[in-house]
Amino acid sequence: MKANQFGQLFCVTTFGESHGPAMGVVIDGCPAGVHWRQDLMDRFLERRRPGGRAMTSARQEPDQVQILSGVFEGKTLGTPIAAVIYNRDARPQDYAKRDARQGHATDLWQSKFGHSDPRGSGRASGRETVSRVIAGSVARMVVEQLVPEVRTFAWTEAIGSIALDHQPEDLLAQDPWEVDKFSLRCPSPDKNRQMEDILKKAAESGESYGGSVALRIFGVPQGLGQPVFLKLKNVFSDAIMSVGATTGFEIGEGFLSAGQNGSQFHQATQDYGGLRGGLATGSPIALRVAFKPTSSRGEVAKTGRHDPCIVPRAVPVLEAMVWLVLVDQLLMARLDRI
Amino acid sequence: MKANQFGQLFCVTTFGESHGPAMGVVIDGCPAGVHWRQDLMDRFLERRRPGGRAMTSARQEPDQVQILSGVFEGKTLGTPIAAVIYNRDARPQDYAKRDARQGHATDLWQSKFGHSDPRGSGRASGRETVSRVIAGSVARMVVEQLVPEVRTFAWTEAIGSIALDHQPEDLLAQDPWEVDKFSLRCPSPDKNRQMEDILKKAAESGESYGGSVALRIFGVPQGLGQPVFLKLKNVFSDAIMSVGATTGFEIGEGFLSAGQNGSQFHQATQDYGGLRGGLATGSPIALRVAFKPTSSRGEVAKTGRHDPCIVPRAVPVLEAMVWLVLVDQLLMARLDRI
Amino acid sequence: MKANQFGQLFCVTTFGESHGPAMGVVIDGCPAGVHWRQDLMDRFLERRRPGGRAMTSARQEPDQVQILSGVFEGKTLGTPIAAVIYNRDARPQDYAKRDARQGHATDLWQSKFGHSDPRGSGRASGRETVSRVIAGSVARMVVEQLVPEVRTFAWTEAIGSIALDHQPEDLLAQDPWEVDKFSLRCPSPDKNRQMEDILKKAAESGESYGGSVALRIFGVPQGLGQPVFLKLKNVFSDAIMSVGATTGFEIGEGFLSAGQNGSQFHQATQDYGGLRGGLATGSPIALRVAFKPTSSRGEVAKTGRHDPCIVPRAVPVLEAMVWLVLVDQLLMARLDRI
Amino acid sequence: MKANQFGQLFCVTTFGESHGPAMGVVIDGCPAGVHWRQDLMDRFLERRRPGGRAMTSARQEPDQVQILSGVFEGKTLGTPIAAVIYNRDARPQDYAKRDARQGHATDLWQSKFGHSDPRGSGRASGRETVSRVIAGSVARMVVEQLVPEVRTFAWTEAIGSIALDHQPEDLLAQDPWEVDKFSLRCPSPDKNRQMEDILKKAAESGESYGGSVALRIFGVPQGLGQPVFLKLKNVFSDAIMSVGATTGFEIGEGFLSAGQNGSQFHQATQDYGGLRGGLATGSPIALRVAFKPTSSRGEVAKTGRHDPCIVPRAVPVLEAMVWLVLVDQLLMARLDRI
Repeated sequence: MKANQFGQLFCVTTFGESHGPAMGVVIDGCPAGVHWRQDLMDRFLERRRPGGRAMTSARQEPDQVQILSGVFEGKTLGTPIAAVIYNRDARPQDYAKRDARQGHATDLWQSKFGHSDPRGSGRASGRETVSRVIAGSVARMVVEQLVPEVRTFAWTEAIGSIALDHQPEDLLAQDPWEVDKFSLRCPSPDKNRQMEDILKKAAESGESYGGSVALRIFGVPQGLGQPVFLKLKNVFSDAIMSVGATTGFEIGEGFLSAGQNGSQFHQATQDYGGLRGGLATGSPIALRVAFKPTSSRGEVAKTGRHDPCIVPRAVPVLEAMVWLVLVDQLLMARLDRI
Repeated sequence: MKANQFGQLFCVTTFGESHGPAMGVVIDGCPAGVHWRQDLMDRFLERRRPGGRAMTSARQEPDQVQILSGVFEGKTLGTPIAAVIYNRDARPQDYAKRDARQGHATDLWQSKFGHSDPRGSGRASGRETVSRVIAGSVARMVVEQLVPEVRTFAWTEAIGSIALDHQPEDLLAQDPWEVDKFSLRCPSPDKNRQMEDILKKAAESGESYGGSVALRIFGVPQGLGQPVFLKLKNVFSDAIMSVGATTGFEIGEGFLSAGQNGSQFHQATQDYGGLRGGLATGSPIALRVAFKPTSSRGEVAKTGRHDPCIVPRAVPVLEAMVWLVLVDQLLMARLDRI
Repeated sequence: MKANQFGQLFCVTTFGESHGPAMGVVIDGCPAGVHWRQDLMDRFLERRRPGGRAMTSARQEPDQVQILSGVFEGKTLGTPIAAVIYNRDARPQDYAKRDARQGHATDLWQSKFGHSDPRGSGRASGRETVSRVIAGSVARMVVEQLVPEVRTFAWTEAIGSIALDHQPEDLLAQDPWEVDKFSLRCPSPDKNRQMEDILKKAAESGESYGGSVALRIFGVPQGLGQPVFLKLKNVFSDAIMSVGATTGFEIGEGFLSAGQNGSQFHQATQDYGGLRGGLATGSPIALRVAFKPTSSRGEVAKTGRHDPCIVPRAVPVLEAMVWLVLVDQLLMARLDRI
Repeated sequence: MKANQFGQLFCVTTFGESHGPAMGVVIDGCPAGVHWRQDLMDRFLERRRPGGRAMTSARQEPDQVQILSGVFEGKTLGTPIAAVIYNRDARPQDYAKRDARQGHATDLWQSKFGHSDPRGSGRASGRETVSRVIAGSVARMVVEQLVPEVRTFAWTEAIGSIALDHQPEDLLAQDPWEVDKFSLRCPSPDKNRQMEDILKKAAESGESYGGSVALRIFGVPQGLGQPVFLKLKNVFSDAIMSVGATTGFEIGEGFLSAGQNGSQFHQATQDYGGLRGGLATGSPIALRVAFKPTSSRGEVAKTGRHDPCIVPRAVPVLEAMVWLVLVDQLLMARLDRI
């Protein structure tokens, strides 16, 4: 089986247990001649790091990535790109009381594979996403050369009942990474502060919160996507719902459109969220993702290094998955016509 | 590319344009010795047929399936199972005014592949789902022998603003197909009648409606699912979002959980919708799917044979996709341990 | 599993038991806009047919192919191409005494899948190759548009101890199908007649013969092939050794080169059979394939419709496999560089 | 593309350029609970090492493998197994005169990917096989638990014109690794010495030699293999021909059978080399592999660290590929029947 593999043509295999020796990724199918941007990869990793934002996990992960293959003199070789990050900050003892972490599925993994891995629930840990972010940064390097105008924006839309109910137009006119100026990645000073408040209390009381992330993808060429099982919409859904703690996914109006009639919908909608028949329309693609509250609460949450809400940290992970989908589909599009 | 293929081990390839010669499917990876139940396939196809329910499309599709290979003397051979349905009721002239069908993406397909196929938008038509339903019925034959207690229930939860806001416990205690006694598959006489009313008006005025479907899956063995890109949750999402007109997908509380804190969620939730860490918990799996309003409105809708709302007809298609996921994952589970 | 599937990008799935209802193929991944040449497909099928050549099987297979999808108004649509041939000439009674057919592996299939299929050993029959030939003809349509100068030549090199020991230069200067003017596809009037003689006697006595086929492929672009498991050489080997009754495969000098030293080899060789490091050099690619004697001998051979030697009929099947490899690799090459 | 990937279910992805930072492999699909035998992996790597055998390459490769994931407390976890070996002995300057290495295809890779990699021809180097050997050792750990009686034997059958013309029955009754007592892995003191002689002279004069390897596989369960593109025979062929410098592959009598008639063949043959209809018969499987003379001759060969004949070193690499095929097919066989 290829359960740890994503992508048809830009094929990513991730590996690593959160408290084992290392995390990593191998990319098979990256074209030769891609201008290597280590700065971009470092930026992607920096954005994923918890450090600096008090609201989220206190775990410090240096995340110094080593490129083991596939890159030479600033360009990709066309051979597999392997990258690895050694886990230096493993403290398994913190995880001893893991019974209290209901949502983490350690028990399920144990019953499945018939063994007990005390190392941070193995692959089910959020640590696993570091491999996705590495791969996503390479995906972006490729997309950048193929279709330079593609940009992704993502932000914290809601944490618990605090929600940003409009699209942040100012932000969308700027650098996608401006959102990082907000501690919880909610691009509204007011809402971000309210979120800070509830998370500060949650950290003290051992509470946790769910939330949602909004994504916008600009510049995707019209017609991108494949029939019928590799439509852009279900591949996005697949990519995003594979991230831990996600519980819902929407395109455009999503569940709101379910309550509409055609006259309302086909006139009012933002061009169907940028997708029609599963293909890109050329308009901005709009996605929304729901996250359940994290499962570590109470005493464990206070002594361990868990986030009271993972939504802000999920932002760059979701973006990474979007880049993986885009690169794969852009390569597929080279095969559309004779 | 394998864009028309679904499944890792129970590998389904679908083919056929809606107004071309035939629709069909080839299944590679069905084990030998599966008791063949043609009655089940016929029932699946009958459930998908529009005939008999005035509210939905008036198009009559006899859907007489031919099994071309892979079955002999009432059992599967272990060789590929090919099935085909010839398209007998093709009336391309009805589709001439297709410009009005905004959502159907004919223009996108044309720009993508560089040709014009007047035959019902080719693969983008709902007719394509007949292949999925055939494959899904075979998937169920296999699952039935592997884990006989697995059952799926699906029903129309909402059409436009008319919504069934509770789980139909009576129904869930019975035969999953009891829901078909309700013309629009909404298992509440009252709600079903209200839905009939708005669809009748919609058919007259050329209006269309969105809606949602709820699914429950019982009896899935604890631990089913694979890390990290073949979790049960993202594979369900992938399968279901590949169906036309879907705009949203939820597990358990979905977007509702995004607004909750952990104390609420981890106590009140229905066991996380039957999935934790992407794996089955053994509890019933709860999914919800949003559909946008169909795109054919106005004159075209009146003269053509389009549904004012596709939700009732989508029910058996979504169930078919669920069976495809289940069979694939059950086969994968055979490889979990040495 | 995808055991009946060949190709990464031009992905072919074959189906059909030799005495079941039909044989067929679905191609997922054929680009849109390929000029459809039904004449080419018919010619491929005609070349595979036993009729007209007394030396080989007397079974008459009309092989009228139906294209069910993927082609419209003379061009491929970019959607899956499905083709089917109904089996009209099934006479299972001839196969009743199949115990005598030692090489056919019916017993092995039976022990594997746990059932008995009297229908011509199901997928192990030579009838299965009709699907490959259909797919190969489509592959050639694509290659023809991508790299028009590619040509393949194949001929009967040996039947039993009668061998053509030189490359037929006259033939190679001509139409690849000139070889069909020789009843057993051995392009030497003298050798072909000797082969006819031994096969005539073999048919009478129930004897059978092994033999070999030589292939030359011209015009393959330099550098075609992928590291390290999709090198042109092992993919050719895979494709060709999947054909029934093959027992050996060589590139260039093959086993002869094993007995050489580097001074001899690197000076004398025909550019390494057109492949170095697994990639095409741009020179003609030279392959050789060994076939064991067919397994049907004695009484069964006389009453059944089996060839005393399958080598002449294998020629177009091997060529079909070569086209499948070439089209897949040419599509892959589109992804080599950014 | 997945060009650096081998296996359907036990899926191996290799990476690393010979003079880049590291070589490695990721295995996705290894079942949980496999008893980890690091000793076996070390033995596999030791067998591949050139050190100690003067006849072959003088390059010293410590080959200290690190297991980065997938193994915990002596058992596999069911998660991806990543292994890496850092390249410590990289001397690119030796490779400066690589123009003389005609067979190494550096020029082809360069024209393909559009860049110049002076690092040992990147992936085309024999160094790449270290990843295969690591993966092969894990494959054997799995097979050992599934079917303990499976054993593989391989030996140097010929170097240049010096050939062992009989099966070494004494050896086959013993430990498969007894063959390593012969410096060139030819299990005949006399032939091995003759081979030593010609290779000693070759090393002095800058000459090189081709040769062949014989393999025997015992204990493979009857019926192993899949129709029609995953037959055991073509998958073996694929696996083995992907190894550098191979030019030919045979099953059982191979090209010899091409010259036989059925009476001779079906009576005299060793049960068709253990394969009929592409499936295992249960008898020993017999394979032969031809290698061309290495391409580094003359001055480069004397100053560099190249083997005058790679055949002895290829023995454990071919065995590793055989284990990869076997594990994959044994896992597939779990899916044969309901």
